[in-house]
Amino acid sequence: MPDIAAVKAALTAQRIETPSWGYGNSGTRFKVFAQAGVPRTVREKLDDAAAVHEFTGVAPQVSLHIPWDRTDDYAALAAYAKERGLELGAINSNTFQDDSYRLGSVCHPDAAVRRKAVDHLLDCVDIMDATGSRDLKLWFADGTNYPGQDDVVGRQDRLAESLSTVYERLGEGQRLLLEYKLFEPAFYTTDVPDWGTSYAHCLRLGPRAKVVVDTGHHAPGTNIEFIVAFLLREGRLGAFDFNSRFYADDDLMVGSADPFQLFRIMHEVAKNGGLAPETRVAFMLDQCHNIEAKVPAVIRSVMNVQEATAKALLVDLDALGAAQRGGDVLAANAVLMDAYNTDVRPLLAEIREERGLAPDPVAAYLASGRQERIAAERVGGEQAGWGA
Amino acid sequence: MPDIAAVKAALTAQRIETPSWGYGNSGTRFKVFAQAGVPRTVREKLDDAAAVHEFTGVAPQVSLHIPWDRTDDYAALAAYAKERGLELGAINSNTFQDDSYRLGSVCHPDAAVRRKAVDHLLDCVDIMDATGSRDLKLWFADGTNYPGQDDVVGRQDRLAESLSTVYERLGEGQRLLLEYKLFEPAFYTTDVPDWGTSYAHCLRLGPRAKVVVDTGHHAPGTNIEFIVAFLLREGRLGAFDFNSRFYADDDLMVGSADPFQLFRIMHEVAKNGGLAPETRVAFMLDQCHNIEAKVPAVIRSVMNVQEATAKALLVDLDALGAAQRGGDVLAANAVLMDAYNTDVRPLLAEIREERGLAPDPVAAYLASGRQERIAAERVGGEQAGWGA
Amino acid sequence: MPDIAAVKAALTAQRIETPSWGYGNSGTRFKVFAQAGVPRTVREKLDDAAAVHEFTGVAPQVSLHIPWDRTDDYAALAAYAKERGLELGAINSNTFQDDSYRLGSVCHPDAAVRRKAVDHLLDCVDIMDATGSRDLKLWFADGTNYPGQDDVVGRQDRLAESLSTVYERLGEGQRLLLEYKLFEPAFYTTDVPDWGTSYAHCLRLGPRAKVVVDTGHHAPGTNIEFIVAFLLREGRLGAFDFNSRFYADDDLMVGSADPFQLFRIMHEVAKNGGLAPETRVAFMLDQCHNIEAKVPAVIRSVMNVQEATAKALLVDLDALGAAQRGGDVLAANAVLMDAYNTDVRPLLAEIREERGLAPDPVAAYLASGRQERIAAERVGGEQAGWGA
Amino acid sequence: MPDIAAVKAALTAQRIETPSWGYGNSGTRFKVFAQAGVPRTVREKLDDAAAVHEFTGVAPQVSLHIPWDRTDDYAALAAYAKERGLELGAINSNTFQDDSYRLGSVCHPDAAVRRKAVDHLLDCVDIMDATGSRDLKLWFADGTNYPGQDDVVGRQDRLAESLSTVYERLGEGQRLLLEYKLFEPAFYTTDVPDWGTSYAHCLRLGPRAKVVVDTGHHAPGTNIEFIVAFLLREGRLGAFDFNSRFYADDDLMVGSADPFQLFRIMHEVAKNGGLAPETRVAFMLDQCHNIEAKVPAVIRSVMNVQEATAKALLVDLDALGAAQRGGDVLAANAVLMDAYNTDVRPLLAEIREERGLAPDPVAAYLASGRQERIAAERVGGEQAGWGA
Repeated sequence: MPDIAAVKAALTAQRIETPSWGYGNSGTRFKVFAQAGVPRTVREKLDDAAAVHEFTGVAPQVSLHIPWDRTDDYAALAAYAKERGLELGAINSNTFQDDSYRLGSVCHPDAAVRRKAVDHLLDCVDIMDATGSRDLKLWFADGTNYPGQDDVVGRQDRLAESLSTVYERLGEGQRLLLEYKLFEPAFYTTDVPDWGTSYAHCLRLGPRAKVVVDTGHHAPGTNIEFIVAFLLREGRLGAFDFNSRFYADDDLMVGSADPFQLFRIMHEVAKNGGLAPETRVAFMLDQCHNIEAKVPAVIRSVMNVQEATAKALLVDLDALGAAQRGGDVLAANAVLMDAYNTDVRPLLAEIREERGLAPDPVAAYLASGRQERIAAERVGGEQAGWGA
Repeated sequence: MPDIAAVKAALTAQRIETPSWGYGNSGTRFKVFAQAGVPRTVREKLDDAAAVHEFTGVAPQVSLHIPWDRTDDYAALAAYAKERGLELGAINSNTFQDDSYRLGSVCHPDAAVRRKAVDHLLDCVDIMDATGSRDLKLWFADGTNYPGQDDVVGRQDRLAESLSTVYERLGEGQRLLLEYKLFEPAFYTTDVPDWGTSYAHCLRLGPRAKVVVDTGHHAPGTNIEFIVAFLLREGRLGAFDFNSRFYADDDLMVGSADPFQLFRIMHEVAKNGGLAPETRVAFMLDQCHNIEAKVPAVIRSVMNVQEATAKALLVDLDALGAAQRGGDVLAANAVLMDAYNTDVRPLLAEIREERGLAPDPVAAYLASGRQERIAAERVGGEQAGWGA
Repeated sequence: MPDIAAVKAALTAQRIETPSWGYGNSGTRFKVFAQAGVPRTVREKLDDAAAVHEFTGVAPQVSLHIPWDRTDDYAALAAYAKERGLELGAINSNTFQDDSYRLGSVCHPDAAVRRKAVDHLLDCVDIMDATGSRDLKLWFADGTNYPGQDDVVGRQDRLAESLSTVYERLGEGQRLLLEYKLFEPAFYTTDVPDWGTSYAHCLRLGPRAKVVVDTGHHAPGTNIEFIVAFLLREGRLGAFDFNSRFYADDDLMVGSADPFQLFRIMHEVAKNGGLAPETRVAFMLDQCHNIEAKVPAVIRSVMNVQEATAKALLVDLDALGAAQRGGDVLAANAVLMDAYNTDVRPLLAEIREERGLAPDPVAAYLASGRQERIAAERVGGEQAGWGA
Repeated sequence: MPDIAAVKAALTAQRIETPSWGYGNSGTRFKVFAQAGVPRTVREKLDDAAAVHEFTGVAPQVSLHIPWDRTDDYAALAAYAKERGLELGAINSNTFQDDSYRLGSVCHPDAAVRRKAVDHLLDCVDIMDATGSRDLKLWFADGTNYPGQDDVVGRQDRLAESLSTVYERLGEGQRLLLEYKLFEPAFYTTDVPDWGTSYAHCLRLGPRAKVVVDTGHHAPGTNIEFIVAFLLREGRLGAFDFNSRFYADDDLMVGSADPFQLFRIMHEVAKNGGLAPETRVAFMLDQCHNIEAKVPAVIRSVMNVQEATAKALLVDLDALGAAQRGGDVLAANAVLMDAYNTDVRPLLAEIREERGLAPDPVAAYLASGRQERIAAERVGGEQAGWGA
């Protein structure tokens, strides 16, 4: 049986990075519903992230998105974060919201557009230098909508060249994380549609290029935990973008659509060393809280990752291995399900209380009055969203 | 073998309705790329629709979307259309872009919101009276994002009550067309997710309630032509919203992703009487030309429907029936494929030339200089889009 | 909060019907792996079913499949069942394993084949009369593999006529349950692909025709619990065929692929009256234990349904309704998740012990030595499988 | 514009390999329908393949499947083939039909089972030496049905070791082709689920390890032609297993479900050098003619590949490149569609007649009386199928 002290230590050590854009407004192509209290500035986003960390104790890092979080003085921003118990995490680039990117960015047929995109990526590395961020997280909206629109192989060549330029610029200890996505906003092809494409580019780039697994970016029926296990075996799992989905890239709260899948993913992570700090797997959220209150939704999401992790850590690996080696299908499955069926909320509450936190972070946040306070205070100005 | 004169007559008689919003800007949740020459007003949208009809000869109807096409005087708008050889088609409602619709419209838990939504739908019927439109086309963004968010059955009750109020208001010869959609913008459930749900509500409402088949609104693997055939058998196929998709509701040009599927759909339509005017099936486009030039994309889409229809009309139904009755799988399939593999472009060019049209409408449009003219003229003001 | 006594009463009253074919050999098109101890006769299948009921206490009914379970004297078989504490449940027809059914059965273009199929269905009703079974469960492998192979509407006409003949033959209190399936073994179209098709036929047939929801028969992304809720609202949910799937119709143990989905389904059942005996919803398993031991797999499956039901019964409907009416997305979701995250195994163990059963049925079965006994005794003869 | 002489030369040079098992009986898990005239022996399978080559002129190779095509003297079999104008193609292994493979073969937890499987693969290489076959084609049914059943990473380790042993045994000029498949017969994980997994193993093995793309083995929504283009860019596309599917691995006639997809695949092949003999891409069929006559279905399939290839060769690459470089989405798409919409049947008929073949191979085969002859002659004995 798992050693409960070790389980508690692992849960205490776990870190979940929250995204600055998760605190801003978001929506679908049909409508963005604004919410009261949404941050107007990157500092207000950090304030919200600090609240999430205050109530959960495991979310000290915040991913930034450039240009949505552009500022004049990144060192000052890092200091602002530090004062609130935070550190600035991955820098996420944006090569999809300029009019010149209508047909792509780093894969665009026009060299001038590619140059512009690469310059932006290099700027992001500059920002990493200033913020002390370790990771450059790259997701490209590049692709085509219609068969024939552009040359698939030509686009790969341009992608490889662009990535290489950026990889060469990385400083000591910095990493390039390459995300893949099956579809959207490109409909016919995306230029990095699956983990295999990301992996092949990372292999060419070098050891500090790693794959990002966004849990909402796969075709129906894909076994995501297989990919996770495979990438861990290859030493190429860089980070998760956690969220969940019923149909497309819904960006719902992680664990809300298929909590069993999240558990299976965390089981592969735990079993294959992915929770060890030296493996350097980053556990990030990448969500859109279109209709629900944002800060409590992020808190809930952090808790969902914790619960899945706790269950994964409770898997009796000795019993599992024995059943697997013995070819006992039902017994092996039962070992896994025993852990999944355990109610880990009391264990996590206990860990929180030992650390001086409230046992139920959502309830504590709602009782704190903070939500009403920011709704009252954050009036006027322009609310942050994907476009700003 | 099909009688070519009858084929030509059917192709000449076919009408394809274009959507006013297809001429405006559109995009994904990530970015709307503006294009030069896009209409600023509903009248300019009609001008574009008139150009499509001028070059194709088969697109005299234009669907309106309220409030995007709101105007003070619908009778004047209808007159404006008539002067350009057009008539105003289906009125499309919008119950998804007001802040009060965050949790739904006609299915919202709050009766006041439902009343607001129903009032809008009744307004749309008033507009139909003014424009002479036959069809009220209803698509609801209603649904939920999270399990438990609302009561599925309660929402059906509210939906049924709302639809009933609207149906009762319809005038002589007016129809209610109810669209279904598996997902987006609601992710966990939509309130009319499939044809069965729409069909069941239509049965309750009465004979003038019909189902709309949007070709992008199904789960992967769904056989759309089966649904079309089934609804024709039941007398409940009201209209198509044509477009095409690779993954989700991509809203690409109809026939661009799977032209064989479009042919199979038109084969069921043609074989089961759906081209006969008395069946009153409306053939509408519902597309988003996010990255391609809009007017030529609509022309191309009209042509794609024509080509699929021509192939469907060329199916040798006698030979097909004989092979089917004889259980000859390969022969029956071959009869269908023979028609599909036929190049019908010369036939359609011939029909156009007999009507005094250019044989290649896209080439003719591009050669006309109109695109450059509207790009030069339509400067200033605010371009039309989904939000305006 | 739910009344625990009522929860326990509902769990005690619940009945889960097991399928005779689940005890026999099964496999994929690639290979059927035989297992030691598999029944050779229908009576041995009933012995296995009796063992499942002995250890779970909630599985007294057994579905039969004709001709796999054909016998000379059904009354004697019913008596044999009764002696073991069982009763014979739904009669499942088979119109797919005769060479004449290559192109379909009740939808076949040849009237002689249709007559043969209908005669088989009428025989099944005769068997129901003899066994006292309430339900005729119909799943048709009918469909086409290639576009054009047969006439979709013609097949519907033949289906309707065949069903009508069978419906007319039903005796007092007997029901016709019509299953739907998106694909397999027909690949291009099946003749009853979705709930809408089944529902439309049931409406025409009459009040004793109901829809069967097999949880493995939907397109990816389908919200099954929506369908369940909708059919309950319409009074047309006849039965479940429970199993689970990752990709196609995998027929895995129910709850093993997506336990949260199973919970959501049972939540809709419980909330909408589906557990009340007068609603007459039959909860059946329809699974294939291709590689795992069969009797313990059926016991596990019964327990999985019980656990999902228990969680569904623990949903605090008052709190849920209040959150839903108040439009509090996070709170409503949290109420549902609180029930789902509860470990209900202790509650079910308690119920079992109160009834004199072992708290862990799988462990008790394995400890009983029965599996070794049947493996030793059931030697020689021909093991039961899908073909026999 | 493409040079017609070059197009004709390429079409004349193209070779399509047919599978010995395509001539035998096949079916689904529900039923195998036997057909009159089906071969009883491997030599009769070769006779059928010779007929396909006789009427099409482009199908001289035949893939063998061991043990279904096991014989005492492979050299004699090769001579038999040669007398009929054929040569023996890829050797396909079978590690899924022995009872010991219930939990896998080369990935099985038991070393003895793995050894057995590897020994079979080494036997296949011996057979290649005897037949002169170039390619060892490996598809593994290995995988798991339930979460926890076995260790994903452990199975990869075993797979890698097994593959390495086989790769080392390959002789001069021999290749190892590794197929991937998302699902079936394993449901939870397969051990080579996607191209990325196959590619990663091939990279480790060496330059003579290549990926096989079976067109029916992907998740819904996958862009297969992207994978094809990517693998050609990497020099790792070994072969196609052509067939088509609507839902799962339906193994229908290639081009029958989505002929436009087949064209897009062949477009990437043609544009990226895949038709050049030195690229050594093998174009194989892998189909199941469950309900249609087998020899004419194979002929039709060969013709479907030819038609897609012809259309691909007719793409005006100069015009396409110009439109792509210019960012003209509609024009680039139109260039592709112009080729697709061309009726290439007259061109292929012309090529056949120039080679002394009948212009319509299916019609010529049916008129030849051969089908009736084999139906009359091949009576008695045991028909070949997947199990024999």
